[in-house]
Amino acid sequence: MVRCVTTDEAPTPERTRRRGPARATGPRLPEQRPWRQPTMRLAHTEAVSADELESIHLASLSILERIGMQVLDPEARSVLAAAGCEVDEASTMVRFPAELVEQAVAHAPAEFTLHSWNPDHDVRVGGRAMVFSTVASAPNYIDRAGVRRTGDRAGFQDLLRLAQSLNAVHYIGGYPVEPTDIHPSVRHLHASFDILTLTDKGLHCYSLGRQRNLDCIEMVRIARGATHEQLLREPSVVTVVNTNSPLRLDIPMAQGMIEFARHHQPVIVTPFTLAGAMAPITIAGALAQQNAEALAGISLIQLVSPGSPVMYGGFTSNVDMQSGAPAFGTPEYVKAALVGGQLARRYGVPYRSSNACAANALDAQSAYESVFSLWGAVMGGVNWLMHAAGWMEGGLHASLDKMVLDADLLQMVSAMLDPIEVDDAALALDAIAEVGPGGHFFGTGHTQARFRTAFYRPLVSDWRNFETWQEAGSPTAAQRTHSLADQFLAAYEPPAMDPDRREALADFVARRVAEGGVPTDF
Amino acid sequence: MVRCVTTDEAPTPERTRRRGPARATGPRLPEQRPWRQPTMRLAHTEAVSADELESIHLASLSILERIGMQVLDPEARSVLAAAGCEVDEASTMVRFPAELVEQAVAHAPAEFTLHSWNPDHDVRVGGRAMVFSTVASAPNYIDRAGVRRTGDRAGFQDLLRLAQSLNAVHYIGGYPVEPTDIHPSVRHLHASFDILTLTDKGLHCYSLGRQRNLDCIEMVRIARGATHEQLLREPSVVTVVNTNSPLRLDIPMAQGMIEFARHHQPVIVTPFTLAGAMAPITIAGALAQQNAEALAGISLIQLVSPGSPVMYGGFTSNVDMQSGAPAFGTPEYVKAALVGGQLARRYGVPYRSSNACAANALDAQSAYESVFSLWGAVMGGVNWLMHAAGWMEGGLHASLDKMVLDADLLQMVSAMLDPIEVDDAALALDAIAEVGPGGHFFGTGHTQARFRTAFYRPLVSDWRNFETWQEAGSPTAAQRTHSLADQFLAAYEPPAMDPDRREALADFVARRVAEGGVPTDF
Repeated sequence: MVRCVTTDEAPTPERTRRRGPARATGPRLPEQRPWRQPTMRLAHTEAVSADELESIHLASLSILERIGMQVLDPEARSVLAAAGCEVDEASTMVRFPAELVEQAVAHAPAEFTLHSWNPDHDVRVGGRAMVFSTVASAPNYIDRAGVRRTGDRAGFQDLLRLAQSLNAVHYIGGYPVEPTDIHPSVRHLHASFDILTLTDKGLHCYSLGRQRNLDCIEMVRIARGATHEQLLREPSVVTVVNTNSPLRLDIPMAQGMIEFARHHQPVIVTPFTLAGAMAPITIAGALAQQNAEALAGISLIQLVSPGSPVMYGGFTSNVDMQSGAPAFGTPEYVKAALVGGQLARRYGVPYRSSNACAANALDAQSAYESVFSLWGAVMGGVNWLMHAAGWMEGGLHASLDKMVLDADLLQMVSAMLDPIEVDDAALALDAIAEVGPGGHFFGTGHTQARFRTAFYRPLVSDWRNFETWQEAGSPTAAQRTHSLADQFLAAYEPPAMDPDRREALADFVARRVAEGGVPTDF
Repeated sequence: MVRCVTTDEAPTPERTRRRGPARATGPRLPEQRPWRQPTMRLAHTEAVSADELESIHLASLSILERIGMQVLDPEARSVLAAAGCEVDEASTMVRFPAELVEQAVAHAPAEFTLHSWNPDHDVRVGGRAMVFSTVASAPNYIDRAGVRRTGDRAGFQDLLRLAQSLNAVHYIGGYPVEPTDIHPSVRHLHASFDILTLTDKGLHCYSLGRQRNLDCIEMVRIARGATHEQLLREPSVVTVVNTNSPLRLDIPMAQGMIEFARHHQPVIVTPFTLAGAMAPITIAGALAQQNAEALAGISLIQLVSPGSPVMYGGFTSNVDMQSGAPAFGTPEYVKAALVGGQLARRYGVPYRSSNACAANALDAQSAYESVFSLWGAVMGGVNWLMHAAGWMEGGLHASLDKMVLDADLLQMVSAMLDPIEVDDAALALDAIAEVGPGGHFFGTGHTQARFRTAFYRPLVSDWRNFETWQEAGSPTAAQRTHSLADQFLAAYEPPAMDPDRREALADFVARRVAEGGVPTDF
């Protein structure tokens, strides 16, 4: 018999009660909102005028046409040359005619469904739908003793378990922390196996060379029990390509784009434009550069495979000009996030932004930087919120505790976006007449019929009065999230993957590991 | 010679260098943005449709017409009766014809200037301008040793000094903490004296009976050196009237409204509508009630003195239905803040909202609840942000440290609302061409010309790398704000009030204290 877990969680009778409010034997977990993608039903906030947006658009076309991008991958250059770009093979510079860019980008679909092996966790990408994906690619994490450690598989798996347990997390957006104790030649195999078996949420694959992309796509196909043809029709795995800002696309990234495009799998093209460092110090300049690089990437993908799904990634922030340190959740960050959404909508492409913060500790700074990031992303019309849960320290460490805090913030955003009911029952004139001047509403039938579900119930917020809170030891939000993370981890239940698929996955990993994975020179 | 301070701050040569970056002898204070009211240049977020807004409006007119408000003050009832309201003297219930309400409210001015004795700190109220006012009316505060104490004059004065030192604070919106060690009969005299002499920002007066209002208005007149006639033309002091929700207006509040209206001084009418307690559990119902009570108050003021300045106050939040504790910064709070702004704009009246949180400690909760509150207020089009700096624990304690944190948040909001420059220089094509692929922008002339002022510089955020931060003792944001509050207090400099005016103020207080102030029965 194939066991359905890799570690010490034995299947239990509770296994089918996934995300239930509590286990009979464990601590009582706080109630979560159900797994559901929120809908942006508010008007987007536009931080620049239509004319200003057009100026940014034209500036980025001018960058691509006059300056160009350096494209290190010969195959990518040949695709671009064949389409009509002006390619200088000596400098590897590629200049893009504006018309070519506009025509190519127009092929990108506005919306698509991204499948998971558990169809309940398929996500809609684009339009007014939002996806919240985990922290990704942190080199470090904070272990359960509060020590910041280099990423390892144990921390990686804990972050996956927690992400699986939190309904507000819709997608595993990458390795939450890099499992550096797995050799790079086989890391993608073991890590993808962990993601596919410890969670039933969708998957991200790193574009670190063609073979890794192919391995990952094949594992997703096995996990879904899908045919090759089905996968071509049904996006089932995503990759993020960060251009090497300014104006450079390296070989693994270009190969990832091409391979994903050929498989019709979505690519999130995200220039890494920190204003003042890898991009101009002005927000408009950084955005012009972001837009140029994003359009270049999206054009390449559409030239390889017209209609292949993509997302427009915005990651423009600023650096602290005193120290050079990246900053997130700043006023400049919010503005760039808002305009990023305007640009993505201009091209009719789903928009990726982030829940970013630069804080070292789970303190007020981590919270205000995150909520300001959310403000920019949500009002900017984000479709794919990367690093939505667990990102700290400008991405240098992942935090289980922050993941719990972020889940609360994400649930709050979702609840905020729930429509306000405005009908006779909600307007409550009868209840107001019944209570009359100076009365209270606690005991009315109108209240009694609604009190269990009327308001958002937080995971973290502590609303006890000061004295009671003090008697309980004056716990801060950081302490409460730590305790909650422990509780969620203790209550973790692995998803019920079909045993045959799981065995096939394990066999694939074993074979590819035996073959040496993807050879490295170290 | 009259000394210009009441306590131990002697005038110094630095006195004229108000809000400078640092004193030669003190610790270096972080740079603040200059004192300036931000402008809401983004489109407001509308959380309900125009039809839904109209339903809320009509429901509130129906509440006033069919149920009515209980008005305990006989003079207010006679004003309302004379205008055409249906008054039942036995029950003190007043029913308002819808047409009367609509006509009365239409007299309220959309904008006005509120004067301070220092004209540099006059504030524009309404339109797209914002005013940030201090925490007000907290019964407790956290002292410099971190102990939560019943409000006293020492804490009151410290909060005033800090508010004076922070450019992001535009107005003293009430007693930041109640100075309970001053007897209530003379508290308003000493407290107003402290506000007028420790700060040069505008003043709030509590509506606790007619005589206190008159004393306070007179003190403001003296401080401004204004004539009585001038004061009638120039709003110079504000009061907040909280209706006793549901549907009751008590005597001191009504008298305050009438007295302020007669003096053409602005009244902020704010129903205290906690959904599930003093208002229906549904957001629409709580808003209908909020709107009914606000319109009743505004109508009374306009009937007394057509065209007298008012503000529409929204304070709708929800309670925790498990404990009955008020909650702030919740999804329901944000939605109510957004719709409150829609209602205020419908009536063409400046909108008051709050920067509220329910947290007991200056932790992540305090920050996320505050930023969510700001999100609702700012995108809702707030004109007057009450409790903008220093509010904690649902208003039960004021915090100097939180005031510093909030000043940072408020500055961030202001910076976020600064326009994005989009011109050729900002689009930076030359710099992008100069740097080229794979380069960096640190050294370019474009960066060098702008790096000092390009980005918002925070008060609190710590962007040092983890190792450096850890070597410094891993200070949290709470610790940093505490240290900053100490630094600001140490560097405090009293404003330079004209000695004659100060003496006249002191004389007035001495005379009124000798007269017994406003007699109380305790």
